[in-house]
Amino acid sequence: MITLESDYNNGCHPQVLQHLMETNNCKSMTYGYDEWSERAKQKIKALCEAPEAQIWFLVGGTQTNATVIDSMLHTYEGVVAVGSAHINTHEAGAIEFTEHKIITIEGRQGKMDAADLDHYMDEFLHDGNADHCVFPGMAYITFPTEYGTLYTAAELDALYQVCRKYDMPLYVDGARLGYGLMAPGNDITLPYLARHCDAFYIGGTKVGALCGEAVVFTHANAHPHFFSIIKQHGALVAKGRVTGVQFDALFTDNLYFDISRRAIDRAMEMKRIFEQRGYPFYIDSPTNQQFVVLDNDEVERLGRHVRFTVWGKYDEHHTICRFVTSWATTEEEIEALRTAVLG
Amino acid sequence: MITLESDYNNGCHPQVLQHLMETNNCKSMTYGYDEWSERAKQKIKALCEAPEAQIWFLVGGTQTNATVIDSMLHTYEGVVAVGSAHINTHEAGAIEFTEHKIITIEGRQGKMDAADLDHYMDEFLHDGNADHCVFPGMAYITFPTEYGTLYTAAELDALYQVCRKYDMPLYVDGARLGYGLMAPGNDITLPYLARHCDAFYIGGTKVGALCGEAVVFTHANAHPHFFSIIKQHGALVAKGRVTGVQFDALFTDNLYFDISRRAIDRAMEMKRIFEQRGYPFYIDSPTNQQFVVLDNDEVERLGRHVRFTVWGKYDEHHTICRFVTSWATTEEEIEALRTAVLG
Amino acid sequence: MITLESDYNNGCHPQVLQHLMETNNCKSMTYGYDEWSERAKQKIKALCEAPEAQIWFLVGGTQTNATVIDSMLHTYEGVVAVGSAHINTHEAGAIEFTEHKIITIEGRQGKMDAADLDHYMDEFLHDGNADHCVFPGMAYITFPTEYGTLYTAAELDALYQVCRKYDMPLYVDGARLGYGLMAPGNDITLPYLARHCDAFYIGGTKVGALCGEAVVFTHANAHPHFFSIIKQHGALVAKGRVTGVQFDALFTDNLYFDISRRAIDRAMEMKRIFEQRGYPFYIDSPTNQQFVVLDNDEVERLGRHVRFTVWGKYDEHHTICRFVTSWATTEEEIEALRTAVLG
Amino acid sequence: MITLESDYNNGCHPQVLQHLMETNNCKSMTYGYDEWSERAKQKIKALCEAPEAQIWFLVGGTQTNATVIDSMLHTYEGVVAVGSAHINTHEAGAIEFTEHKIITIEGRQGKMDAADLDHYMDEFLHDGNADHCVFPGMAYITFPTEYGTLYTAAELDALYQVCRKYDMPLYVDGARLGYGLMAPGNDITLPYLARHCDAFYIGGTKVGALCGEAVVFTHANAHPHFFSIIKQHGALVAKGRVTGVQFDALFTDNLYFDISRRAIDRAMEMKRIFEQRGYPFYIDSPTNQQFVVLDNDEVERLGRHVRFTVWGKYDEHHTICRFVTSWATTEEEIEALRTAVLG
Repeated sequence: MITLESDYNNGCHPQVLQHLMETNNCKSMTYGYDEWSERAKQKIKALCEAPEAQIWFLVGGTQTNATVIDSMLHTYEGVVAVGSAHINTHEAGAIEFTEHKIITIEGRQGKMDAADLDHYMDEFLHDGNADHCVFPGMAYITFPTEYGTLYTAAELDALYQVCRKYDMPLYVDGARLGYGLMAPGNDITLPYLARHCDAFYIGGTKVGALCGEAVVFTHANAHPHFFSIIKQHGALVAKGRVTGVQFDALFTDNLYFDISRRAIDRAMEMKRIFEQRGYPFYIDSPTNQQFVVLDNDEVERLGRHVRFTVWGKYDEHHTICRFVTSWATTEEEIEALRTAVLG
Repeated sequence: MITLESDYNNGCHPQVLQHLMETNNCKSMTYGYDEWSERAKQKIKALCEAPEAQIWFLVGGTQTNATVIDSMLHTYEGVVAVGSAHINTHEAGAIEFTEHKIITIEGRQGKMDAADLDHYMDEFLHDGNADHCVFPGMAYITFPTEYGTLYTAAELDALYQVCRKYDMPLYVDGARLGYGLMAPGNDITLPYLARHCDAFYIGGTKVGALCGEAVVFTHANAHPHFFSIIKQHGALVAKGRVTGVQFDALFTDNLYFDISRRAIDRAMEMKRIFEQRGYPFYIDSPTNQQFVVLDNDEVERLGRHVRFTVWGKYDEHHTICRFVTSWATTEEEIEALRTAVLG
Repeated sequence: MITLESDYNNGCHPQVLQHLMETNNCKSMTYGYDEWSERAKQKIKALCEAPEAQIWFLVGGTQTNATVIDSMLHTYEGVVAVGSAHINTHEAGAIEFTEHKIITIEGRQGKMDAADLDHYMDEFLHDGNADHCVFPGMAYITFPTEYGTLYTAAELDALYQVCRKYDMPLYVDGARLGYGLMAPGNDITLPYLARHCDAFYIGGTKVGALCGEAVVFTHANAHPHFFSIIKQHGALVAKGRVTGVQFDALFTDNLYFDISRRAIDRAMEMKRIFEQRGYPFYIDSPTNQQFVVLDNDEVERLGRHVRFTVWGKYDEHHTICRFVTSWATTEEEIEALRTAVLG
Repeated sequence: MITLESDYNNGCHPQVLQHLMETNNCKSMTYGYDEWSERAKQKIKALCEAPEAQIWFLVGGTQTNATVIDSMLHTYEGVVAVGSAHINTHEAGAIEFTEHKIITIEGRQGKMDAADLDHYMDEFLHDGNADHCVFPGMAYITFPTEYGTLYTAAELDALYQVCRKYDMPLYVDGARLGYGLMAPGNDITLPYLARHCDAFYIGGTKVGALCGEAVVFTHANAHPHFFSIIKQHGALVAKGRVTGVQFDALFTDNLYFDISRRAIDRAMEMKRIFEQRGYPFYIDSPTNQQFVVLDNDEVERLGRHVRFTVWGKYDEHHTICRFVTSWATTEEEIEALRTAVLG
C-alpha cells in the first residue's frame, strides 16, 4: 500500500535520529536550557538574519498556535483568520479553549487578502458598536495554506503593511514551512518572512522531526513571561533537549531545506501523473499537498492501492481527495502511484 | 429629539415600578428564593403550559446566553448559530470566554434553516476528521432575530426536528420575545415555543423591566447545579427579588403581552411612514425593529430630528439604519417622526 | 420572626426607590452613559477626593470581583488573598473561571498582614523555580473582612507600602464598605482608602440599594478596554441607569453614610445584648456582623425566634453563629431580639 | 560536576533509543493509532491486570494533569489536593487555566490522609452554603509525593474508600511511579494501584523515556471524547508513535522496573552517605529524592562539586536541599558524591 495520506506518517530523518543517538549519554540542563537547544536557536537566528529574534521549541502545531496566540492577545481580543484556517477547522477549539474568538473573514484560495483585512479593520473601527464586539488583536495566516497555496512576497508584504497600519501583529503558521520555501515559484525566503511578520513557527513534525515546532518571535517581541505561559499551557517539555537536538540536526548542513526540496520534487512528479491521467485539480497547489477531484468510483478503485485523504464532497458524483508527499516519500512510491493511476 | 435608537433607553413600566414599591418594605429570602420570584415562576410555567419547566431569573441577555450555553455544553463542544447571531456579533466574546466555539452556518434573513443545519450535521458526522473538530453540541437561534424577522411555527418545528434527530438541544434567545409573539402574522405561541425547544429566555430588559431575563428550561432539563453555575458566572443576584418582583408584575393581568402589542402597533405605524416616504427596507420585519436604507444625505438630515442606529454601510451612497419602538414609545413620538420624515 | 441572617434580605432604602420613581419616565442613554450614572460618578469622585478616579457600576459582588481582578491580571498571574477571603470561599470558583489562581496566605482575624505578604513576595522572588509558579500579580483584601474586622489606617498603609514595593496592585472588596467606614474606632476615610489602594468597590447591594456595586479605579488606572471586559463577563447592564440612579441617591445628602451608621448602632446594641447574656464572641467585630459561640441547644432554642446563619462548628457542643444588622434593621427587631435572648 | 539536581537531566535509556531506531523507517498510522502504541497499551493493561483499562500517551506531566483533571470534572467542580501537591505549586496555574479550582487540604508528609478528606467532605456536604462553593469533584494525589514519601497499601485503600463513599474519582500522579513501586518497604503493586484509583499515570519522562506519560483510566471510565479533549488541550501528538514506541520499549522485559530499582539502589547508597556524614533529613524518603538539611556554608562548599536543588530555607542558618538519583545515575557518580561529602 502506498501511503500518501499525510506528511507525518513516518519516523524522523536519519540525521535527526543520529543526533539523538550521539547526544543521548550527555547530561544536560532541563526545560530548554540545554546546549543543543541553544545551538539550534543560534542557527535559526542566523538563517533568519534576525539576531534579535527569540526562539522557543514546542511539541506540536495546535499547541504552538494556542500558546503563541494566547500570549499575543489581550483577554478581550480575538484573532483574525480566514474560514479555512487550521485553527478554525481542525484544532478542536484549542484557541477558544484559551478564551479567544477566531474572527473569520473570507479567504481566497486559502489565503487572506490584504484588501479584505484592510476593509474588515476599517469597518470595525468605524462601527459605533465596536466596544460590544471582540477586538481584532492579531492576524493569523498559514504558509503554505491548508490548500497548499502560497503567498507571494508582494502579497505577504501587502498584508503586513495592513497589519502595521492597524498596529496588529501578524503570526504565520508554518507547519509545512519547508515545503513552502522550496516550492517552485516561491519568492519568499526565511529572512524575508522574518521581516514581514511578528511571529512564525518553523514546522518540524511534518518536515523531518519526530515532533517539534520552532517558534520565532522576529524582533525580541516574545511575551516577557512566555516561559511561564508555555508551562501554563502544559506545553513545557522537561527534557527540552528532545526538540532542541532535533532542530539542531535539521538546521545543520542545510538538511531542512534539502529534504523539503526532495518532497517538493516528488510532489511535482505526483502532480504530473494526475495531470497525465486528466484528473482535474480542486486547487492549483505548488507544494506537497495536491487536491484532485475524483469520480466516486475512482476513489474506491484507487483506494485499493493508495492511502489518501478524502477531503470532502465535490458534488453528488465527485470527491475532493488529498495526496501528500513528505521528505520520506520515495521514488519507488511515486512509481507505484504512477502504475496505480495510469495503469 | 425623538429617540428610536433602541428599546432599552427607558425606565420600566409603571406597573413594574408599582410592584417594586409595594413589596419594598418586606424582608425576604435571598438568591431567588423569595415569594415573588416563586410566584412569577408559577405564572410563567402556567402561561407556557409547561408544569415541568424550570425557571431562573438573570439580569441581562449576554449574561443569560453565556450562562445557559455554558451549562448545556460539554467542554469540547460548541454552539451552532448563524453568522448574524447576537452571540457571534455583539457580545464581546462572552461565549468564547467560557471556552466554547460558536460554529457559524449561513443564515437566511437572520434565521437558521432546518435544512442547512441538517446538512451541516450530516457532513460533520461523516467527516473522518470529526474528532479534530469542535463538536456541535447545541443550536442557538433568536426570536425575533437580530433583523426583526420571525420563524414561522412550521420553520421552528422543522428546525427542532433536526435538533432532535441529532440529539442536540435547541436554545432560543428571546431578548425581544414579546415583540415577536405579538407581531402581525406570527403563529408561534408561548406554549408552542416551550414545546419546540429545550430552553429559551423571555426578555424583560427590552420589554418593560429595568433589568431581567427569565430563563425557561422547558422540560426539567436544567443542569442539576445550575444555581452554582450562575454564581460561578457572576450572574447570581443577592437580592433575587429585584428580578422576581419585576417578572411577577409583567406576568400579571397580561401586562407583558399588552405592552408588547402596543410597541408593535407603533412599529407598524412607523413602517407605514417609511413606506409612504418611499424608503426601501433592507429587510422586511414584522416586529419592533425596522431597517431602512437611507441616502447618506437623508441620514444626516433625519439625524437632526430623530435618534436612530446606523447599522452599516449599504453602498457608497446609502446606509442601513435601524429604527426601534418599545412599550414606552408614545403616539406623540410617532407623530413627530411622521413630521420629520414626511415633512 | 426576627431576621438577622443577612444584610440583603430587604428591599432598597425609600430614597433610592424614590429616585427610581422620579427618573422612571425619562428616556436616557444606555450602557451607563445616562445622566444619573454620570452624576453619581462625580459625587463619588468628590467624596473620594480623587478627581482622576474612574468609576463603573456593576450589579453584584462576585461579578465585580471576577471582572475587576481579571482586568488587572495578566493571563499567567494570580491574586494573593487570605484563606478566608470571599473570593476563595463563597464565590463558586468565579475567579478560577477566569483562569486565575487565588494564591492563599494565612490571615489574621480575616486580615492580610503586611509582613506576611512581604515575606511571601520575598520568598517568591528568591525562588529559583518561580517561573514554574503562578505569579502573584495583585493582592485582594476585604474591608470589612468576612469576620467583620477592620484594618486600621496604619495596617492598610503598611500593606499598601508592601504592594508598591513589589509593584503589585491592591484591590479592596468593599461589599460592606459603609458599615466599615461608620464603625466605632475606624480611622479609615473614603479619601484615605482611595489613596491607599489601586481599586476598590463601594458595596450597594448590602447598603441600601436593590443591586449595584461601584468600582473605583483610584488613579485613572482602569483597563483601557474595561467596558468591553465588563461586557465579555456578561456584567454589562443595558439600562445602566438601574445602578446609576441608585448610587446617585445613595450619595446624595450623606445617605450612604447615615444609613450605614444606623446599622452599626443597631449592631452595637445587639452586641451588648449578647454580652449581657454572656455569649462568648468568636471574634471581636466592630461592624454589622457579629459572630457568637452558642451552645447547640441554644442554637435550636434561639432559632425559633430569630433567623441567623450557622457559620460553622466550634466544637462538639458549640456552634459559631452569625447575626447581622443592616440599614433596614429596626429598633423593634432589636428589642425582640433582646427578649428572645435575655428572656 | 556530579549532577543530582533532577531525574530528567539525561537522555533516554539505550533500549528506548534502540526501539526508536529499529522502528524509524516504518510508516505508520498517526495520532496514536500506530502499532507500537497499541502494543504498549496491551502490555500496560496486562501488567495492571486491568483488561478494561483505557490507555493514552501524553507528552509531559503538567499537560497530563491538566488534561485528565479537566476531563474528569464538571465545569463547576474543583479538585481536592494537599497544599504541597505539584498541581498546586509548580504547574504555573495549568489547572486554573482550565477554569478549575484546586481545593487544598492540609497534607501529612506530602500525603493526603483519608480521615482529613472524609472530614472535609463531611463538612462540605453539611455546609448550608455549599451551593456558593466550588464542588469537590475529585481527589488528586502523587505517588511518590513531592517529598519522596509513599502511601502504604492500607493508606491508599482507606483514601479510596473515602473517595468511593462520596462518589468522587481518585487520580494518582505517578510522574515517578517506578521509583515508588521499587522503593524499599513499598507494598503497592501496579495491579493494586489500578484497583485503588480511577485514573493514574505512569511517568516516562523521569523514568527512562525522552518524553511521555501513560495515562491509565482503570475501568473503562475515560471520557468518551477524551481524544478531542487531548487535542483541545494542545496535547495531541501527530506522530503518536514517538511516545508509543518508548513505552513499548519500557514495558518490554521488565525494563521500567529494573531501571527504577537501580535508581532506588543508588538513592539508598546516597542516603547512607548523608547519614554517615550526619546530615539531618528534612523528611524520611524511601525513594529517589532525598531531602537533607545543610548548614548554609555546606551548601556553598558542596555546590562546588555537586549540582543539587535548593528546596527552601530551613532557618536562618540552614537550607533544605534535594538530591535526586535516576535510572541514569552511575556508580561512579555516587562514589564521587561520597568523596565530596565525606572527604
